[in-house]
Amino acid sequence: MLVRPKEGILDPQGEAVQGSLHKLGFEVERVRVGRVIDVELVARDAADAREQVERMCAELLANPLIESFQIRLDES
Amino acid sequence: MLVRPKEGILDPQGEAVQGSLHKLGFEVERVRVGRVIDVELVARDAADAREQVERMCAELLANPLIESFQIRLDES
Repeated sequence: MLVRPKEGILDPQGEAVQGSLHKLGFEVERVRVGRVIDVELVARDAADAREQVERMCAELLANPLIESFQIRLDES
Repeated sequence: MLVRPKEGILDPQGEAVQGSLHKLGFEVERVRVGRVIDVELVARDAADAREQVERMCAELLANPLIESFQIRLDES
């Protein structure tokens, strides 16, 4: 899943990266830094997997006040 | 872009998340944590954008010894 700072929420890490990229000569207008979390889990089907991952995000992986998350499922 | 710990490289953050998910009752077999970095930049075309982002990764955003990166371009 991808966990990103919500629109309008300050992102100090993104600002630091943007400053460093400027110093290196890159013309970047905006940088936002979030997390990619790859989880391998046991699930009955895709719906079960999605429901589990949504609960993981809500309970541990994302702070809903300041972060949004996006889920992508791969089967193996 | 997505920056992830390479296969075989220790990922303490992923292990910590896995331990916490276990304690919450989730059956997760593997967790890896990386970064998602969204950059808005000025480029002549897609090839130019990709070349710039590859240089950003090599020069600042990813440590090639322990991390791999994946680039996705969106036009606006």
